[in-house]
Amino acid sequence: MEKAYVVGVDIGGQTTKIGIVDRKGTIVTQTVIGSKYKAGEAGIFIQAVCDTIRELAKEVGFDQIQGIGIGAPNGNYYKGTIEDAANLEWAKGIVVELAKEVSLALDNLPVTVTNDANAAAVGEMTYGAARGMKNFIMITLGTGVGSGIIINGELVYGHDGFAGELGHVTAVRHNGRPCGCGKTGCLETYCSAIGVARTAGEWLELTDEPSLLRGIENITSKDVFEAAQKGDELALKIFEFTGKKLGESFADFVAFSAPEAIVVFGGLARAGEFIFKPIREAMEANMVSIWKGKVKLLPSALKESDAAILGASALAW
Amino acid sequence: MEKAYVVGVDIGGQTTKIGIVDRKGTIVTQTVIGSKYKAGEAGIFIQAVCDTIRELAKEVGFDQIQGIGIGAPNGNYYKGTIEDAANLEWAKGIVVELAKEVSLALDNLPVTVTNDANAAAVGEMTYGAARGMKNFIMITLGTGVGSGIIINGELVYGHDGFAGELGHVTAVRHNGRPCGCGKTGCLETYCSAIGVARTAGEWLELTDEPSLLRGIENITSKDVFEAAQKGDELALKIFEFTGKKLGESFADFVAFSAPEAIVVFGGLARAGEFIFKPIREAMEANMVSIWKGKVKLLPSALKESDAAILGASALAW
Repeated sequence: MEKAYVVGVDIGGQTTKIGIVDRKGTIVTQTVIGSKYKAGEAGIFIQAVCDTIRELAKEVGFDQIQGIGIGAPNGNYYKGTIEDAANLEWAKGIVVELAKEVSLALDNLPVTVTNDANAAAVGEMTYGAARGMKNFIMITLGTGVGSGIIINGELVYGHDGFAGELGHVTAVRHNGRPCGCGKTGCLETYCSAIGVARTAGEWLELTDEPSLLRGIENITSKDVFEAAQKGDELALKIFEFTGKKLGESFADFVAFSAPEAIVVFGGLARAGEFIFKPIREAMEANMVSIWKGKVKLLPSALKESDAAILGASALAW
Repeated sequence: MEKAYVVGVDIGGQTTKIGIVDRKGTIVTQTVIGSKYKAGEAGIFIQAVCDTIRELAKEVGFDQIQGIGIGAPNGNYYKGTIEDAANLEWAKGIVVELAKEVSLALDNLPVTVTNDANAAAVGEMTYGAARGMKNFIMITLGTGVGSGIIINGELVYGHDGFAGELGHVTAVRHNGRPCGCGKTGCLETYCSAIGVARTAGEWLELTDEPSLLRGIENITSKDVFEAAQKGDELALKIFEFTGKKLGESFADFVAFSAPEAIVVFGGLARAGEFIFKPIREAMEANMVSIWKGKVKLLPSALKESDAAILGASALAW
């Protein structure tokens, strides 16, 4: 018999969002737990996820759960694993049998795993800014930079299930910043929330330019946003630089799959025109003429916590 | 009634190859005509193509032709057009209604148009190095740099039919060479046959390094290849540079669609290890660890003139 609910799990670098979703796409209940476990603690994290699912499921009855969809960094759809995820200490350099272990702990419920950004893309296509689109690219600006690529209405998984790691294209070729993935100059090292904070730290050290950011310890992208809102020149330049790097790469992505739109999701997207303006300008300046003015650049139309949960949950139906 | 033959037409920057193909994929007859017509001469070129098709078709009987498939720069599958092709003077800045005009001139035979590199990719998948693969990227190194992207066994056309213009991703961000497409720094400006010749000219002027290439007028990539075969240091460095630029970009392509292989086709591919070694090294050095050592780099397994004709013809069945 078909059940009434599925579970959506969104594993991020800092937190993991878990929600119970009904057939209409309503999140009936949700919560957040931490993701920051150490190397060797994958089992403890998975136990925490499963305990939370059981707890949440009490509200609708555990026997009413059809299955579980999980979005995770380096989540592999084909194998149900997380493999060598740079932003998760407990999944660095190893293969975590996520689908198998969660299923075992939860009465053999079917579990589907994909890249967290892929899950967000499915959420956006079903309920958000990309409704009705068959070709678009979802870019998630969070702890890292993730992507979900939709071609002909379907997620691109590639030969091995890992397609769509656009946070790791090379944005700076010479003397680029080291990335958790082992490369240097990855887009993610400049344009994630952490990348923005790195830019702030670097520029504050390299120049004497006055800025509201001076003196703040452990600057975050939120600090940079707040300073920009107050008209801080350096903060505004940081967003301009970040947006430019994104836009330059977006132009290359367009040359690959000629999408109808690029949808931008995540914390940094909340910076609005501070970041969208330079993205749009650099994207247009770097696109082949046939695409100029034709590819939409859209902010996500979903609440931040909803897209990933809804997307992940959609995999479970 | 189904007919026994189709026509494959491959329009390149310099020449256009036309062949009659049977149901087994044998090219029963083929010829080559020039492509270098001036602005305003699209009609004359199209007439030459149609005359040639009629002439070739005499061998099997015109009434035995099922249809015509055309691979062309900026060929649009959805619309049957060539739109603003940088390497064809007669198609620069305008839309050429190729399918419609060829069909009109040839008794309303059905005509299908796609990107020349897309056509080559279909040929490679059907008869060449990518047989049995469902996810690969075809890179054609000719007058320009073209690409055909296969995902889940199908060509990627994108929202507008122009997807897969990987020759126009930005390979050099600062002070890059001007490209026919209006951008600067495109991969094509460094890694096409013309790009290799440009590198030779530039380096000969910028340095005093002795080289067999000195004194040659209008250096071609073939000159560079022949000098490299004789051990010429500068020629070898030119291939190393060209391969490095290709490999760096290939690594980014892998991050997009996680292909099983990248297949390299065209004149420059004949330079063998002179170019494949630096491609392989740069590609491996710039890939995220999950793909290192796992993505095949293959030379095309088709005769150069065959891939594009066979691929284009396959569209016509």
